[in-house]
Amino acid sequence: MSVSLNNIRIVLSHTSHPGNIGSAARAMKTMGLIDMRLVQPKQFPDPVAVAMSAGSTDVLDAAQVTEDLATALQGATLVVGCTARRRDLSHKMVSARELAPLLMAQAQTNPVALVFGTEMSGLTNAELEQCQLLVHIPANPEYSSLNLASAVQILCYELRCAIIDMPAAAPVELARHEDLELFYQELEQSLIAIGFLNLAAPRRLMTRFRRLYSRAQLEKEELNILMGMVKLIRNPAQINQAAKLD
Amino acid sequence: MSVSLNNIRIVLSHTSHPGNIGSAARAMKTMGLIDMRLVQPKQFPDPVAVAMSAGSTDVLDAAQVTEDLATALQGATLVVGCTARRRDLSHKMVSARELAPLLMAQAQTNPVALVFGTEMSGLTNAELEQCQLLVHIPANPEYSSLNLASAVQILCYELRCAIIDMPAAAPVELARHEDLELFYQELEQSLIAIGFLNLAAPRRLMTRFRRLYSRAQLEKEELNILMGMVKLIRNPAQINQAAKLD
Repeated sequence: MSVSLNNIRIVLSHTSHPGNIGSAARAMKTMGLIDMRLVQPKQFPDPVAVAMSAGSTDVLDAAQVTEDLATALQGATLVVGCTARRRDLSHKMVSARELAPLLMAQAQTNPVALVFGTEMSGLTNAELEQCQLLVHIPANPEYSSLNLASAVQILCYELRCAIIDMPAAAPVELARHEDLELFYQELEQSLIAIGFLNLAAPRRLMTRFRRLYSRAQLEKEELNILMGMVKLIRNPAQINQAAKLD
Repeated sequence: MSVSLNNIRIVLSHTSHPGNIGSAARAMKTMGLIDMRLVQPKQFPDPVAVAMSAGSTDVLDAAQVTEDLATALQGATLVVGCTARRRDLSHKMVSARELAPLLMAQAQTNPVALVFGTEMSGLTNAELEQCQLLVHIPANPEYSSLNLASAVQILCYELRCAIIDMPAAAPVELARHEDLELFYQELEQSLIAIGFLNLAAPRRLMTRFRRLYSRAQLEKEELNILMGMVKLIRNPAQINQAAKLD
């Protein structure tokens, strides 16, 4: 099995029906993916999940159940949310086909994650905030209600198709999810300190910053630079603590 | 709905489980297909089919049930069989992606059909004889057991992708070159002021910032935000001069 597919996590958040978890496991395995993460599934483990997995119990058995999305995303360098509709002030959105080569390229060297929300309402805004990119599946505008496992199936299919024509791009090391979150915390504190961000009238400032830096897909070294700068903003005296660059 | 999609029949032969018929109807409808034909289904109509169709009952209600494959194929000008494996002395085989434009081109003027066999054993040799072309879905060679409705979903998705382009995203106003240059000047001054940038040892810092923000393709409004922040870094007292946001 390809290393790149092993690096791709399928994250299902707050899934209601265990049957969908089983069907998603089957969908993953048919395309060669194995890493499933379940954020607070309503019912799991469950015999219905096993039945619907049609023998993909290895995927189910290895599935990590987590309390929150952040834990499921630890270590992931590119986090993509699957959404049926365009959101207000949203992240950059690409189609499933456009996403596949981007995700595969990154997965050659680092874990990446595809995040799916609940069957009824998809990803929450808080979950979307943790994504850097959104992906949508082209569908009938009058009836775009794809089954959860069907959405997983199509995206995994696109990823498999993308193996065939992988460009051999030099991989860059992207920033990790948890380091990005830490950066946003530091940035917020510094913006408050210099009077640019007023929590009583936040103007969606942090969302805008997240959107910008998500689109840029920050590299690890770039994040180090930004982090160094942001800390200095708050305390210009700490010159010696500026991020060291090689 | 596109005429071409209306001309595409999904033919399910001898399907064992009514749930799969319902799921296939849903898969079809999400991609804008409406013409389902059922050759001797084991159990249909059936409440499980209705439940799994998730509201795609119009597809189920209109589904034509026939005694044999030939009847289901009447009038079709291109008949394609879906198969997981290469057959001995078989027809020409194409991938799902290769098939889509071929089928769509033909469907502009004439009915065409995609034929799926039973869940357990696929199409019989007698059924294959009635096909002109075979299509396969790329899959994990060690576990290629796609659910019937998943196979329908992927093929219908490929057909839909063959007709549509990406939805036109609302154009955003990007930052102008001269404003970007001004920003980099301000940023440099501020970084010097807080001691993050030392011109005697600049560490290619400004080049790195340029690279990062170039990749992000800054929007006009985002540049305004960054500019406001950067000016405040140098002079935290100037709170009233912060960039105004709408």
